[in-house]
Amino acid sequence: MATADATTSYRLIDGKQTAEDIKAEIAAEVAQLTAAGQRPPHLAAILVGHDGGSETYVRNKVLACERVGFGSTLLRYEDDISEAELLAQVEELNNDPGIDGFIVQLPLPPHISPEKVIEAIRPEKDVDGFHPMNIGRMVAGLPALLPATPAGIVELLQRYGIKTSGQHAVVIGRSNIVGTPVSILLARNLESGNCTVTLCHSRTKDLPAICRTADIVVAAIGRPEFVTADMVRPGAVVIDVGTTRVADASKKSGFTLKGDVNFAEVAPLASAITPVPGGVGPMTIAMLLLNTLRAAKGEVYPK
Amino acid sequence: MATADATTSYRLIDGKQTAEDIKAEIAAEVAQLTAAGQRPPHLAAILVGHDGGSETYVRNKVLACERVGFGSTLLRYEDDISEAELLAQVEELNNDPGIDGFIVQLPLPPHISPEKVIEAIRPEKDVDGFHPMNIGRMVAGLPALLPATPAGIVELLQRYGIKTSGQHAVVIGRSNIVGTPVSILLARNLESGNCTVTLCHSRTKDLPAICRTADIVVAAIGRPEFVTADMVRPGAVVIDVGTTRVADASKKSGFTLKGDVNFAEVAPLASAITPVPGGVGPMTIAMLLLNTLRAAKGEVYPK
Repeated sequence: MATADATTSYRLIDGKQTAEDIKAEIAAEVAQLTAAGQRPPHLAAILVGHDGGSETYVRNKVLACERVGFGSTLLRYEDDISEAELLAQVEELNNDPGIDGFIVQLPLPPHISPEKVIEAIRPEKDVDGFHPMNIGRMVAGLPALLPATPAGIVELLQRYGIKTSGQHAVVIGRSNIVGTPVSILLARNLESGNCTVTLCHSRTKDLPAICRTADIVVAAIGRPEFVTADMVRPGAVVIDVGTTRVADASKKSGFTLKGDVNFAEVAPLASAITPVPGGVGPMTIAMLLLNTLRAAKGEVYPK
Repeated sequence: MATADATTSYRLIDGKQTAEDIKAEIAAEVAQLTAAGQRPPHLAAILVGHDGGSETYVRNKVLACERVGFGSTLLRYEDDISEAELLAQVEELNNDPGIDGFIVQLPLPPHISPEKVIEAIRPEKDVDGFHPMNIGRMVAGLPALLPATPAGIVELLQRYGIKTSGQHAVVIGRSNIVGTPVSILLARNLESGNCTVTLCHSRTKDLPAICRTADIVVAAIGRPEFVTADMVRPGAVVIDVGTTRVADASKKSGFTLKGDVNFAEVAPLASAITPVPGGVGPMTIAMLLLNTLRAAKGEVYPK
């Protein structure tokens, strides 16, 4: 990758637009399916309680379903639902032939084990890609419903023509939802992978020096503006997965979304970079819809 | 980690002895179980065809079972067994309450899908730790039957008191059996993990330079003596997973086992190193036995 000086203009990786493109592609495919007499794909979401963030996420998912022509079902429960009742609801959705995929919005109340609930979902309907069966297949390079945010990152890199093969990707953060799975995806022996991948985390020594060796930096730690200019090699590609709400009295909502990257400092160095908001965030829902379409078509687990 | 000059003596990581120690611990536990009136753990192995290597591996596994007091069953089939027949045998073992765990020795003949066979094994009895369910749980840090060779590597590091937390581990090779899972285990947020991990492979650029930054090198590529002195920082810990048969007329067997590390060159630089043979190799069977014991006790998937 060519080096660049601070005056070089960077490419903005527009996740919002890319997500719109993907949704348009999905809508076109749904139109074909229904024109051929098939029912549209159907996504169900289970929401427990009234967490503000969860309410917003689930509402956006349901709206996105409508926009691409999917059917959708929202199942709401109060915080006091028992684990057994929730597991029974999961089982009902597992067995409902009218539901192609479903999600259980996290977090769940403390008396319910999220692992138990996720493992109760049939892998064929696990459109969040969180079931160990899908994660395990992903690791083996087998067909899988991929976790949405990591898959969205890989999709962004591909659609922007960013070469991954032989590049050194440094992933900061080892969460089960983003850091660990994206490190696996980027290292796989596939056209969209083939990176040399270094996975960094809270125990990593001299993180800035490691980051400076990266061709591609993926920041997924949830610490606002953690990645600063001294951590990024000129010409690197920077993917910012962070979306932390920081209090901001000037906003109607009372907060601003901050990424893990100090955009103002880092963008002038980068060859390409995702903004926050409008970068990785919108890709998550697009990939959830894509998983639902793939589940409906039996692409991963033949019906 | 302190640097060392070429005259410093290295520690030999004796996998043969460690495997013996583990087997003695297992045998003691089996004696306790049977003294308490329980039946001993029972491992079954399915062997298809007459591959020389596979015959040896399976024979050694059965012998190891006998030595620790396990029951064992060897089921042999000819190369022309159909996939459906093999899957029926797997299902029979799944449902046999007298079998705690079983393995299907790989490779299988080309007309049988190894993925299909592995996925047909109940995760609770998958003592090779190859089922996507176990791999996925491993990725999430949940209880799992771990793949034997990667688990053996982690066990060796632990038993030799080699610190992993905050150390930089460079894994060479991304196979599903060793490289990829050991990279995951070493990065996990556990006492036995917490490494910063770089996963390298055939597409990696300037591998020697990356290796030289490692505190721990794990070589798992199957290329004899690939890792040379110029690739290892003085004081590094070197784990050699390679076991390639190289023709050797002076041996009765006609071959010598060669590791992925040029031992003569690298050992004087290393603070600790595994030999080949007698390093990682013997640990694989010990960990298979440990998985069988854990399966029998219902430690991972409560019965």
